[in-house]
Amino acid sequence: MATEQRQITINDIKRAAQTLAPILERTPVIKSHLLSTETQEVFLKMENLQRTGSFKVRGAFNKIASLSEEEKKKGIIASSAGNHAQGVALGGQHFGIPAVIVMPDGTPKAKVENTRSYGAEIVFGGPIYDDAYATARRLQKEKGYTFIHPFDDDVVIAGQGTVALEIMEQLKEVDAIVVPIGGGGLVCGTAIAARHFNPKIRIIGVQASHAASMRDSLAHGSVIELDKAKTIADGIQVRRPGDRTFELCRELGVEVVTVEEEEIQEAILFLLEKHHIISEGAGAVPVAAFMSKKIDPSIGKVCLLVSGGNIDAHVVAEIIDRGLLLQKRRFRFTTMIDDKPNALGRLTSLIGELKINIMQITQTRQKYGLDLAFQVVDVLVETGGKEQTNHLVETLKEHGYSVEEL
Amino acid sequence: MATEQRQITINDIKRAAQTLAPILERTPVIKSHLLSTETQEVFLKMENLQRTGSFKVRGAFNKIASLSEEEKKKGIIASSAGNHAQGVALGGQHFGIPAVIVMPDGTPKAKVENTRSYGAEIVFGGPIYDDAYATARRLQKEKGYTFIHPFDDDVVIAGQGTVALEIMEQLKEVDAIVVPIGGGGLVCGTAIAARHFNPKIRIIGVQASHAASMRDSLAHGSVIELDKAKTIADGIQVRRPGDRTFELCRELGVEVVTVEEEEIQEAILFLLEKHHIISEGAGAVPVAAFMSKKIDPSIGKVCLLVSGGNIDAHVVAEIIDRGLLLQKRRFRFTTMIDDKPNALGRLTSLIGELKINIMQITQTRQKYGLDLAFQVVDVLVETGGKEQTNHLVETLKEHGYSVEEL
Repeated sequence: MATEQRQITINDIKRAAQTLAPILERTPVIKSHLLSTETQEVFLKMENLQRTGSFKVRGAFNKIASLSEEEKKKGIIASSAGNHAQGVALGGQHFGIPAVIVMPDGTPKAKVENTRSYGAEIVFGGPIYDDAYATARRLQKEKGYTFIHPFDDDVVIAGQGTVALEIMEQLKEVDAIVVPIGGGGLVCGTAIAARHFNPKIRIIGVQASHAASMRDSLAHGSVIELDKAKTIADGIQVRRPGDRTFELCRELGVEVVTVEEEEIQEAILFLLEKHHIISEGAGAVPVAAFMSKKIDPSIGKVCLLVSGGNIDAHVVAEIIDRGLLLQKRRFRFTTMIDDKPNALGRLTSLIGELKINIMQITQTRQKYGLDLAFQVVDVLVETGGKEQTNHLVETLKEHGYSVEEL
Repeated sequence: MATEQRQITINDIKRAAQTLAPILERTPVIKSHLLSTETQEVFLKMENLQRTGSFKVRGAFNKIASLSEEEKKKGIIASSAGNHAQGVALGGQHFGIPAVIVMPDGTPKAKVENTRSYGAEIVFGGPIYDDAYATARRLQKEKGYTFIHPFDDDVVIAGQGTVALEIMEQLKEVDAIVVPIGGGGLVCGTAIAARHFNPKIRIIGVQASHAASMRDSLAHGSVIELDKAKTIADGIQVRRPGDRTFELCRELGVEVVTVEEEEIQEAILFLLEKHHIISEGAGAVPVAAFMSKKIDPSIGKVCLLVSGGNIDAHVVAEIIDRGLLLQKRRFRFTTMIDDKPNALGRLTSLIGELKINIMQITQTRQKYGLDLAFQVVDVLVETGGKEQTNHLVETLKEHGYSVEEL
């Protein structure tokens, strides 16, 4: 979809900022005192607080605003299960024009409802994203809609660049900006905007290692398509970067680092517990990259973008549950007790005396090879952390219980 | 602890703002498009993004900054299990002075560690808050520390007033500000600051109905102490309001409304899902009051304070879990299957064909009164919401299964 061959300039991005100003938020930049050190200041740009919950609305809205009256009248279409869908829908609502969003069949209800709440028509386009894309392209031709590409479009890229325009105004000086890369629209807009103010600024894009299509394309020297891409960071789960964005990333010297799934989950939990914000997977990859030391600490003053917050609540609950297990603030173990009255009472009283809360417990005598005199008990407890968990294990062993972590 | 009888003025609050500016965040005010209607604009002031995770640091820091060099050298002490503790500790760290925080014995590890991370000395003062308070007062006398009161102090109140100073600057015009009330320091500072700019502004304080000590005191005409106060909004779980704050609330015509525990949980989930922020219980009561229609919608343009975000992650996970059950996005039911091979297979396949995910399942034939031919199955599923849950129930019944919600 690389259409225009002229350069995207800072003026395109400044014009985009004017277009967006009446509708969107200027999201806050807040210092992370926990990530900062004596020699490095670290800031978070909180685009999860943006309308629709992500930066994507910037590019989509800028593109829709740029359409002719004729095009607007005919309506717009996009294929997306996520943030782009909501951005396009909001743009359609604002201009009072028909907006059709084609989604994969299994799109979570919450995202469908959020998109519908902006007045968009939802069409289910088939089992996976590629089907939804094909359906959108077919409907575009049949009905004369304008297709709003999620990233490979200069007007969209200029819209995404407004994030960095704000960062440069809010922070004055900054040595590096770290953003997620999916298709590449955001990182290109970021680089163009930020380099205008600081030609030496380093622009680092982060991909999930399970969906590193831009990294692999840059390494390969041309756009390649991954066979599959599957990550908790669904917003950047893109099998093929844009042609235009690929060229721009190469020209602009965008650096790419990757993060693992567990690192993304840790970053989400860190932002929740320490900064009191909800980030989606894609939104947390810059923080994940920083926390897992993928970013050279000598890079100087750095701004990490939290690009969006659209994550299902039940996924948040799961991340908390797993994080607490990882941090040993929850502990699951199996032990054995005598097959006699009050055996469970003695075990649970011992745990209770340590002021540790039992969350779940199951007990059975039905286990192959188990001595007739015993029962097996699986216990899930909530503790104050690693120290208290270790104390629990020692205390149980002192009282003759076996402890096997589950 | 009401010490000074002179008025707290806007100048005290402006001076406090100058004191705090180099250290603290100017937190964002963001429009809630979801709570706003065609006739009413609703804004959220996000003080959960403040350093230490709550507004409390404003008052504590302002007080510590006001101490003489002599007092500073001797050190400061406070009793708190929560936000005030972190605020005092940060203030101590900033001025490089000894800070002692007396906490109740059972204070969650996370809060202890957060407070300790600012270099404060932690003392455990006994089983409940009252014990911690008594211990702090004793240590204050023994060691010559200055006691930093969490609310009943004019310098603290002036510090809390800086929140409203920011709101008035950020929103220009606003008809009402809604804040939580615990001891009353915040609401008094808010009223004094806001009335300076808009003498007619309505100041609404929200209490948990299980800890409505200020409401009851105002109704009674003098300060009363509740026998008990127990709410998920632990930050405003205060049995007795301040003497000074009580007088000021009366003079300033502060209105008080109350919210129920379930309303607070719903507000926390709403902020998490729709605004992508984490609020603690006390921080969510203004939103809870608005959402549960305790605030007259003809009140005009309103700013709801999200006063803090210090909530344990496992409580967040619980609130999500319960919220999903309430919204029927999770559904727990019991049914019966034949005591024959593949009976469970048929049931679970039927559920799976509806694209519904099973989260937990237990099966037993051990139930009093159960026909020998059957087994009991308890199932927890994850659905797209009420509609899909109803569809599941109908489909199961069509296939001859009983369905009893658990």
